[in-house]
Amino acid sequence: MNQFDWEKGFAVDFSTGTGLSKTAKSTKRFLSQMKGIFCENDKIEEMISKEDILVYEFYELGCPERAGDLAFGTTILYPGKVGSEFFMTKGHFHVQIDTAEVYYALSGTGYMVMENMAGDTECLPLTAGEAVYVPRGYAHRTVNTGGVPLILFFTFAADAGHDYGTIETKGFRKIVRDVDGVAKVMDNPKW
Amino acid sequence: MNQFDWEKGFAVDFSTGTGLSKTAKSTKRFLSQMKGIFCENDKIEEMISKEDILVYEFYELGCPERAGDLAFGTTILYPGKVGSEFFMTKGHFHVQIDTAEVYYALSGTGYMVMENMAGDTECLPLTAGEAVYVPRGYAHRTVNTGGVPLILFFTFAADAGHDYGTIETKGFRKIVRDVDGVAKVMDNPKW
Repeated sequence: MNQFDWEKGFAVDFSTGTGLSKTAKSTKRFLSQMKGIFCENDKIEEMISKEDILVYEFYELGCPERAGDLAFGTTILYPGKVGSEFFMTKGHFHVQIDTAEVYYALSGTGYMVMENMAGDTECLPLTAGEAVYVPRGYAHRTVNTGGVPLILFFTFAADAGHDYGTIETKGFRKIVRDVDGVAKVMDNPKW
Repeated sequence: MNQFDWEKGFAVDFSTGTGLSKTAKSTKRFLSQMKGIFCENDKIEEMISKEDILVYEFYELGCPERAGDLAFGTTILYPGKVGSEFFMTKGHFHVQIDTAEVYYALSGTGYMVMENMAGDTECLPLTAGEAVYVPRGYAHRTVNTGGVPLILFFTFAADAGHDYGTIETKGFRKIVRDVDGVAKVMDNPKW
């Protein structure tokens, strides 16, 4: 039974400070669930052997996957690196590929890394107090290049669907690395 | 020419503190544009004769009205009253009536007043750090019952369309008034 009333509406809390909700339950992604995602695979194994850190968490409120409905929530991407590569989300295409997504950054600094099926890439820097428009047709991933959590409020069409597989196979064409203390967007050597 | 690239994506600033953007231009609604909206019409004329106060402003970024696109921005609803009735937005149905809208409150306190074509009403209190889901089929209006601006980040389907006329004729069934310093939801005497 879904705790939210999608027919009559509801309010749900997401702290502007932490992005976390007291009433909804987040989905968590730990380092051990991110194997193969980062370039430096040996580094992630080494890290996990010490502590299985929480990389990010986000909310799935159970919106019906119907036309006209909108799914929304926050993503909290914690600061950190695997080797020189900044913590990031897995990233996904929408199954209904021509559906956009809107993100609003409440805290933090990073990038929205995007690419479409044709191979066009767009990497938008984003910072607290900015909204980012992920256009129709673009897979997207968030990267935290700062020292504090990158907190994003997101909204997308509830019937868009998520396709993680296409990206998981080869990754994105672009990655974001720490080069002598500066975040640099560069070609993915694994692609 | 639209300043934003809806094909490749973009970032746009909306201050988390004021809700205002330095790069986008807001649409403003002054008291003189709100005649007939509040119950106490004599009071609004009296107020305008002294100063035509800004009641609210919001952003229209020019998103193409296509399926799959999402329109977004902030609404900043200033604190104030016309007689005992709190400042509010005009409110609207979507032309594509079965399309939802998501609001996230960055600051302030108020209500999301909603009603559908069947006459069902829902009035959800909302406060900073809460998201409100306006379900498919519901006209909606925001009311600021606090002493600071009510700042909302909104997202809706770009092809939803806005129908202000249906609401403008009779208003909403419910209004929010200041009764001895307390915000009360009550029946609209004009309905």
